[in-house]
Amino acid sequence: MKVLVTGFDPFGGEKVNPAFEAVKRLEDYIAGAQIVKVEIPTVFKKSIEILDRKIEEEKPDIVICVGQAGGRFDMTIERVAINISDASIKDNEGNMPIDEKTFEDGENAYFSSLPIKSIVSNIRSEKIPASISNTAGTYVCNHIMYGLLYLIDKKYKNVRGGFIHVPYLPEQVIDKKSTPSMNVNDIVLALTTAIKTSVETQNDIKISDGKTC
Amino acid sequence: MKVLVTGFDPFGGEKVNPAFEAVKRLEDYIAGAQIVKVEIPTVFKKSIEILDRKIEEEKPDIVICVGQAGGRFDMTIERVAINISDASIKDNEGNMPIDEKTFEDGENAYFSSLPIKSIVSNIRSEKIPASISNTAGTYVCNHIMYGLLYLIDKKYKNVRGGFIHVPYLPEQVIDKKSTPSMNVNDIVLALTTAIKTSVETQNDIKISDGKTC
Amino acid sequence: MKVLVTGFDPFGGEKVNPAFEAVKRLEDYIAGAQIVKVEIPTVFKKSIEILDRKIEEEKPDIVICVGQAGGRFDMTIERVAINISDASIKDNEGNMPIDEKTFEDGENAYFSSLPIKSIVSNIRSEKIPASISNTAGTYVCNHIMYGLLYLIDKKYKNVRGGFIHVPYLPEQVIDKKSTPSMNVNDIVLALTTAIKTSVETQNDIKISDGKTC
Amino acid sequence: MKVLVTGFDPFGGEKVNPAFEAVKRLEDYIAGAQIVKVEIPTVFKKSIEILDRKIEEEKPDIVICVGQAGGRFDMTIERVAINISDASIKDNEGNMPIDEKTFEDGENAYFSSLPIKSIVSNIRSEKIPASISNTAGTYVCNHIMYGLLYLIDKKYKNVRGGFIHVPYLPEQVIDKKSTPSMNVNDIVLALTTAIKTSVETQNDIKISDGKTC
Repeated sequence: MKVLVTGFDPFGGEKVNPAFEAVKRLEDYIAGAQIVKVEIPTVFKKSIEILDRKIEEEKPDIVICVGQAGGRFDMTIERVAINISDASIKDNEGNMPIDEKTFEDGENAYFSSLPIKSIVSNIRSEKIPASISNTAGTYVCNHIMYGLLYLIDKKYKNVRGGFIHVPYLPEQVIDKKSTPSMNVNDIVLALTTAIKTSVETQNDIKISDGKTC
Repeated sequence: MKVLVTGFDPFGGEKVNPAFEAVKRLEDYIAGAQIVKVEIPTVFKKSIEILDRKIEEEKPDIVICVGQAGGRFDMTIERVAINISDASIKDNEGNMPIDEKTFEDGENAYFSSLPIKSIVSNIRSEKIPASISNTAGTYVCNHIMYGLLYLIDKKYKNVRGGFIHVPYLPEQVIDKKSTPSMNVNDIVLALTTAIKTSVETQNDIKISDGKTC
Repeated sequence: MKVLVTGFDPFGGEKVNPAFEAVKRLEDYIAGAQIVKVEIPTVFKKSIEILDRKIEEEKPDIVICVGQAGGRFDMTIERVAINISDASIKDNEGNMPIDEKTFEDGENAYFSSLPIKSIVSNIRSEKIPASISNTAGTYVCNHIMYGLLYLIDKKYKNVRGGFIHVPYLPEQVIDKKSTPSMNVNDIVLALTTAIKTSVETQNDIKISDGKTC
Repeated sequence: MKVLVTGFDPFGGEKVNPAFEAVKRLEDYIAGAQIVKVEIPTVFKKSIEILDRKIEEEKPDIVICVGQAGGRFDMTIERVAINISDASIKDNEGNMPIDEKTFEDGENAYFSSLPIKSIVSNIRSEKIPASISNTAGTYVCNHIMYGLLYLIDKKYKNVRGGFIHVPYLPEQVIDKKSTPSMNVNDIVLALTTAIKTSVETQNDIKISDGKTC
């Protein structure tokens, strides 16, 4: 088996992106599967084009995209991506789409095909906080997740895929007030657990992890 | 014109629901439109059935469902509802669905057909904090919003509809630590503004109000 | 009886200060006591000098200083003021003291002589969230509270005094993310309750309202 | 030189206390100074008695007490301890004092005699978030800090001392919503830096790190 794992480059004035900082530290083989790691630009459209090309080249069984969720407290496994972009800051090439569809012929939303509840449960077993998130925002993170699931729906039917958000690193919050962070080693362990779970789990477990709002 | 406005009854151990507390205080006519106010039970399925019957009876032009968003700081206008229920607490009749679709033949998600950006902008002009939310959760609030937009898609093509989340009232947070709240008069003014905006706005404005995550 | 109530002018880039916005709306008589309202500049030293002069002139029985606590969720009745100033932003005349004592011959700290537990309890009875705070910060709010209690200790032995922090108004948080606020009418009601309690209470009640940290 | 470092045992239903979890992992020598590590019970009065005995036995040059600050985001170096206990939960022997003085003949408050600003600055240089706190609460943490500084004032004039609060560990927040945490290795590095700074710094630096409230 082969797992393609992507992480974005830094954006929004940050010097690092905890997503790729963690992705690049992953082992080359996890649970017997080969891990291919790619850094992707935080740019609308181009990020999906690069992802598409990479999937074509590498023919992975599973694709997991990883992004920074500044302000979140724990590892958040995304449940769903929506067909809209609404940027509050420019991306790394100056684009700032407002209320634009990612693909005109796409569904309103796509659900992750990773075993998200099992991933949350297994990360918690490693003593790292994790939960399901029901929004990946409306910026490039949601955009790549939507693009990935659109591509899977249209072109790569046998691939499973999804998106994971990671908190800031401690070094990123030194000048930010009351902002949570997570050690990079904990993020690496959590991502490793997510990959292992995705490789080994056929049917997700059914446990409650919803939000009232 | 006629606007149907619903608010849920109290749930999760609360004595009041700020949604219906505010809805019942609305004027009977706003911007020339008649306002029909209904309290709806915080119950999966039954809430949608009651809503369906009410729409059939009242034949409104616009439907706005309102719910409590405990822990949120401002008025949040929901952008999208997803086809899943994942309850972390029981509803008011003991149901606690996990990862169940609301309608088997529905889209993965439906977008609000209210002018959400104009609503946010106009509420802010009244000096009340407001923003777009990209998740209505996975409990009865998302469920009724999804049900409303599904019904509109299938049966009531000419109706416009959406969902608004309101913070706790001050009296609800007296025994909760570090939890935001909003005065009921401010919520009433904000809802009035949302209704007025929905009645008077044909095409929504295009301003950025997205979230990076 | 006479109660002197002070509120600061706006600082830190804000257009209003919720403290004086509320203070100026107070009734002229509360619980039979005359209320004297004064706006005080958010300036180190000068604020204490003006307060001293005002106490000399008015000869109040009780002095309550009120200030803005941006980011706090509820009415906070301060327990203690410390003999240090450590400003993170300039005051309204450009002063920015770092680790300076307010009075060389003062105690390390002074405790409020208001019935702080009774005030919290009575404000909550009015359905408004309130709690004891154990720090008034190290800016002009702590400075005036320390100055007031120092003056009481040295010159005005029969006066009782203390400090109350109030949240932002809703209009102040429109452009701030995830920031709590309180309606000015609720703040006025809470302050009125605090004044009434101070006038009528000889001995404070003994109920727990501490913090583990 | 000798540094006595104390950490509390678990309280409030927690299975571990991040304070002693970190303290027990400290090296035996830091910056040439011998490190003596002691676990102290989270119990009013008894904790101070044990500390007093330990200081008498060990004759340290510096004493640093460490405690858990559940809900805080970063390492917080305490500036001041106040002469009051106001417990919101029982201590580990069932005591729950309300508004009681720790020592009748003590000052209203004592300031830390550690180089707190240098400690914050040096921990940040290690890429770990840290700040000054102006309240250690009113529970056993403030109690031991007050007791330590009282003992220094009365009996151990040549000793320098203070208190440091540490966040929850990740494993402690798995079932808590939106609660920050810090990896134990980061806490150990931060405490090591604080000890090194205390050993090597005669005069604290003068940089702003105050709070408006």
